[in-house]
Amino acid sequence: MAGNTFGKLFSLTSFGESHGAAIGGVIDGCPSNFELDFNQIQMELNRRRPGQSVYTTQRNEADEVEFLSGIFNGKTTGAPIAFIIKNIDQHSADYDQLSTAFRPSHADFTYHAKYGNYDYRGGGRASARETIARVVAGSIAKQILSKENIYFQAYVQQIGRVKAEKHSNYTTEKIESSPVRCPDEDASKKMMLLIEEITEKGDTLGGIIYCSIKGCPAGLGEPVFGKLQAELAKAMLSINAAKAFEYGSGFAGVELLGSEHNDILNPDFSTKTNHSGGIQGGISNGEEIYFRVAFKPIASLMQNQQTVNKEGHSVTLEGKGRHDVCVVPRAVPIVEAMAALVIIDFWLRWKMYSKK
Amino acid sequence: MAGNTFGKLFSLTSFGESHGAAIGGVIDGCPSNFELDFNQIQMELNRRRPGQSVYTTQRNEADEVEFLSGIFNGKTTGAPIAFIIKNIDQHSADYDQLSTAFRPSHADFTYHAKYGNYDYRGGGRASARETIARVVAGSIAKQILSKENIYFQAYVQQIGRVKAEKHSNYTTEKIESSPVRCPDEDASKKMMLLIEEITEKGDTLGGIIYCSIKGCPAGLGEPVFGKLQAELAKAMLSINAAKAFEYGSGFAGVELLGSEHNDILNPDFSTKTNHSGGIQGGISNGEEIYFRVAFKPIASLMQNQQTVNKEGHSVTLEGKGRHDVCVVPRAVPIVEAMAALVIIDFWLRWKMYSKK
Amino acid sequence: MAGNTFGKLFSLTSFGESHGAAIGGVIDGCPSNFELDFNQIQMELNRRRPGQSVYTTQRNEADEVEFLSGIFNGKTTGAPIAFIIKNIDQHSADYDQLSTAFRPSHADFTYHAKYGNYDYRGGGRASARETIARVVAGSIAKQILSKENIYFQAYVQQIGRVKAEKHSNYTTEKIESSPVRCPDEDASKKMMLLIEEITEKGDTLGGIIYCSIKGCPAGLGEPVFGKLQAELAKAMLSINAAKAFEYGSGFAGVELLGSEHNDILNPDFSTKTNHSGGIQGGISNGEEIYFRVAFKPIASLMQNQQTVNKEGHSVTLEGKGRHDVCVVPRAVPIVEAMAALVIIDFWLRWKMYSKK
Amino acid sequence: MAGNTFGKLFSLTSFGESHGAAIGGVIDGCPSNFELDFNQIQMELNRRRPGQSVYTTQRNEADEVEFLSGIFNGKTTGAPIAFIIKNIDQHSADYDQLSTAFRPSHADFTYHAKYGNYDYRGGGRASARETIARVVAGSIAKQILSKENIYFQAYVQQIGRVKAEKHSNYTTEKIESSPVRCPDEDASKKMMLLIEEITEKGDTLGGIIYCSIKGCPAGLGEPVFGKLQAELAKAMLSINAAKAFEYGSGFAGVELLGSEHNDILNPDFSTKTNHSGGIQGGISNGEEIYFRVAFKPIASLMQNQQTVNKEGHSVTLEGKGRHDVCVVPRAVPIVEAMAALVIIDFWLRWKMYSKK
Repeated sequence: MAGNTFGKLFSLTSFGESHGAAIGGVIDGCPSNFELDFNQIQMELNRRRPGQSVYTTQRNEADEVEFLSGIFNGKTTGAPIAFIIKNIDQHSADYDQLSTAFRPSHADFTYHAKYGNYDYRGGGRASARETIARVVAGSIAKQILSKENIYFQAYVQQIGRVKAEKHSNYTTEKIESSPVRCPDEDASKKMMLLIEEITEKGDTLGGIIYCSIKGCPAGLGEPVFGKLQAELAKAMLSINAAKAFEYGSGFAGVELLGSEHNDILNPDFSTKTNHSGGIQGGISNGEEIYFRVAFKPIASLMQNQQTVNKEGHSVTLEGKGRHDVCVVPRAVPIVEAMAALVIIDFWLRWKMYSKK
Repeated sequence: MAGNTFGKLFSLTSFGESHGAAIGGVIDGCPSNFELDFNQIQMELNRRRPGQSVYTTQRNEADEVEFLSGIFNGKTTGAPIAFIIKNIDQHSADYDQLSTAFRPSHADFTYHAKYGNYDYRGGGRASARETIARVVAGSIAKQILSKENIYFQAYVQQIGRVKAEKHSNYTTEKIESSPVRCPDEDASKKMMLLIEEITEKGDTLGGIIYCSIKGCPAGLGEPVFGKLQAELAKAMLSINAAKAFEYGSGFAGVELLGSEHNDILNPDFSTKTNHSGGIQGGISNGEEIYFRVAFKPIASLMQNQQTVNKEGHSVTLEGKGRHDVCVVPRAVPIVEAMAALVIIDFWLRWKMYSKK
Repeated sequence: MAGNTFGKLFSLTSFGESHGAAIGGVIDGCPSNFELDFNQIQMELNRRRPGQSVYTTQRNEADEVEFLSGIFNGKTTGAPIAFIIKNIDQHSADYDQLSTAFRPSHADFTYHAKYGNYDYRGGGRASARETIARVVAGSIAKQILSKENIYFQAYVQQIGRVKAEKHSNYTTEKIESSPVRCPDEDASKKMMLLIEEITEKGDTLGGIIYCSIKGCPAGLGEPVFGKLQAELAKAMLSINAAKAFEYGSGFAGVELLGSEHNDILNPDFSTKTNHSGGIQGGISNGEEIYFRVAFKPIASLMQNQQTVNKEGHSVTLEGKGRHDVCVVPRAVPIVEAMAALVIIDFWLRWKMYSKK
Repeated sequence: MAGNTFGKLFSLTSFGESHGAAIGGVIDGCPSNFELDFNQIQMELNRRRPGQSVYTTQRNEADEVEFLSGIFNGKTTGAPIAFIIKNIDQHSADYDQLSTAFRPSHADFTYHAKYGNYDYRGGGRASARETIARVVAGSIAKQILSKENIYFQAYVQQIGRVKAEKHSNYTTEKIESSPVRCPDEDASKKMMLLIEEITEKGDTLGGIIYCSIKGCPAGLGEPVFGKLQAELAKAMLSINAAKAFEYGSGFAGVELLGSEHNDILNPDFSTKTNHSGGIQGGISNGEEIYFRVAFKPIASLMQNQQTVNKEGHSVTLEGKGRHDVCVVPRAVPIVEAMAALVIIDFWLRWKMYSKK
């Protein structure tokens, strides 16, 4: 209930602060006797970690995961899988001015209002460093689901006003070969130039991530409040800086007529179009599931900003510390991880009740 | 877990099918000794009910709510509040052709895939008639929260391609005086004309609802997975035909720079702008919370459509039955109700832990 | 969280007061396409209902269950199954004196302390009439589990100081042929005489129920906090008037040595003895699961008692109304029902993760 | 759902195996800004730890707790509190023979049936070493509740057939001054002699713990399925080796008449007797809450035993390793910890809804 657990059958309880001893998590409900690929987990963490390219924050963390339980002889035992990633490269001194100032559009004021305290060192619990735990758990979920031929793929579709061309099928190599994870080469170049330009100005950029899930059987999701798209929306809006979610035709679908929007069924129960985004009545229909998530420009600027301190006195906040100008490329593995956590929960449930 | 319960401290368990005996629900965790205004509940149901104007389906249901428990001498007792709304005006014969055909972009195929059966009479459990239960529970939540000066207001901002002018503060009277619940008079007229035109064609229309929540104290919401916007997104995407959710700056915020997007704090901890949509770090900051929800055109057309039956054979589906051409005006009280269910849960939790 | 829901995958949300419109419940997560035997459900209700013999309260309720949803053409659809049992034979006037007095050892004072009100008419929500909902849901669970050859059998082992002989295998017919549900004929007769004697005195009697569950596969239950015995204990202690629970060797096992208590394994993994009560490490081992539940003498006497009213003034409570002298025989189907609700939840989970 | 989380508002997720890297847990929902007494936590761990006296196992673990998150400047922040206790003194080689044998009355066979594997090194997840996490979380709950004048006190009432005299009020010093935590000096001596005698024989002993909770306000607990005694029963039966639970009059209450059992109210709403054990209708009435928990003799013997291996072949299990002859004295702080976890959850909920 306190917000740090996601999932019911396959659940992740996350813990840790940006400048505390460690970030970590506990996965409960993981199927037993599954042989984990630890390199794969580390590879996903590397996609998220800071310092991976000049387009990301220079905080330098190896982000090596250490497993404490739930694994015996390389296989899951069915017991809870606890893991930690130690925090190493902390520059807490950078945050001294923050011990009294509330940073604009950060969680400082709201955490203080809620808890009567806030951890001014890098955002504490509100830091996006917390998403490390999601990537670890998501990577395990992806490994299990890939044996069922269910795959997740996200990429950057927009940064600032630079947009990739209309969606088409890209290889993972194509996406990952772009430092900003945009498979449209032309847009990718423009995005890098834009990041360089905005870095100069000490400002920040938002963007949009497109995610697709292939291979889901028909029947995942629950009716009414437990609709598949409702859980995906929750999962995505729980990511730091996410502001919007749309699946299938999304906002644009509003302007279509029903006769244009309806997905006509083929004799094999596939559909001729996929405005539904692979979900009808809250339940997967076997088509590709796809959605888009919008991220605001992050609030930590390398510019001076006016703000107030705890007493409500006006203070100037200097632009210090090491921050991403645009987090969107690093959010790609996080979007995939959260999608995988949603799907594995429904998939475990589906296995149990499935009529097949 | 099976998807029919929403909320943790103040929870609604919903039941019933479109053409079954009744739609109903059980509210658990409602504060005790609260004097209910039953007229207010019925008034909210009237805003949702079919047949309220020529712009809505002509299925004629009084939708009168009957309470079975949890209320003694007009006050809540703290025990679960069960209620039913009997189904009366059912034309099940209209659905005979559906007992073998899967309607395009409906839940017929996916329910069949999941459950091995589906209720072809008006969509059964997947019917939007289920939202009656949400409106009853939401109305009770709104009554409790209004004593705390927390208010909910939604209206129609777009139907098809007809858009209301930029958001401003409207009175509820202004919104409700429009048959399509659009307070921009000019747009409202155009929307009505559009609905008439599309009705002639036997087609359907989508739209966008804007919702604002005023009066929330700073401190509602949970960190990480339990962010206020994440629960709102889940709540909204759980409504039939909803395709997208954005709060605060939403998709448009992607194109702002951080220096444009940041909401600078005033000495009283209010903010000069509100791109954050009243939520920072997943927790309310005391500003107005606002968001938008997109609805697709509904899938039931008054046109013939090609589809397949359970055996995968091609069949023609005739356009029959009584359906809304555009559900968006009737979805306004549903959006408010779901928002109220989200807020009351966080508000109860806030009361418990609040430092004040 | 508010206490009216039991179970996770197969859940029952119960509602209703003794003297309200109806008692009812909503079952969510019931497997779909299961053909229900409605006579069987009514038969279970008849085992619980008042007025079934001279040894039970003479409140005369047919207790006929009416299903509102979740069933189509006699089969479960997978949607929530809502049901009500209307209250008919209410003598609310009997309770007038209670509107100010707190009955000793009832929930009057504690409900008033918790909710600021209490329903003095027959105990309201605290009445054992609420267990009707448990019997309906339990009966459905039992039907589903009986197809898997899992069976539940409870009987009365003690009333007051009259004890049945040591446990042995009894037929259901033998148990049900005793008006007090005690299969030991000699003890059964003594129990009936005791009830008659205590009825004369306007007093009440407690007792002990023995319950066994046969046919469970090895592997039901969860480790640590979710142990099978922990959920059974919770289920049993949630029944009105239950004071104690023991499984396997129970309290008596304390006096054995480990070498006497250990259940030695046979080559087919069955055990030579069953002090473990069919559960080891919180998980079923395939042997018979058995436990005992103690019930106090109910608190409603046909004698005058001294008590206090809401203002703390001393008042005399007259012995009025229609009450059981000993509820234990009627609690037999309730114990079975709660056991079935525990087992079906674990069984559904087991199906999902089972290695077989 | 997978069994490793306890509590809803104040929850503990536990992880770790006996011979893995560490035992640990994550506490979520702890009130913020609470100043922790770390010595107190360690002191509670010392009450539970092995090697504390000659009457406990000689496995020598300092059991020092290390906090990873949720604490800043000595106070709780409201973020999840993660902690680990490293495993140091492991003699895994002692368990080599177990890699194929199922120990009688252990979890080996049932874990294997459930998970397709089992951790033969000291019981793995099924080891009572897991209860360390409960003691840490319980100690924090006790600290918070002690500020509200709610106190927990447990002691050993019986070991084997040696019983302490009838319950009376003991000081904590009196209890803790006995190496077997039995405040009746005469019984304490007999218990120590009995343990010595049974140690010689390589056998083991069970026992009974009495626990009382003082200072609870009236109003803790939920009706129906969430009764306070139901949650206490679940909590106690989740402890390794626990076989039975009774509260208030318990099994003995069965033999009283209602007129003897009823607790008559005083003008200040206290009761003249307390057969109810401080709970009526599932909700605390402000009187002392008390209950008893029975523990079986543990299954690890220092004798040879016959058993079978995974293939069902008969094997002889040698009595090796370091085990308690009687765990009951060490279970005293665990019983208190679990009671505290139950009460804090209800107390947080009570604060939220309380009418006062």
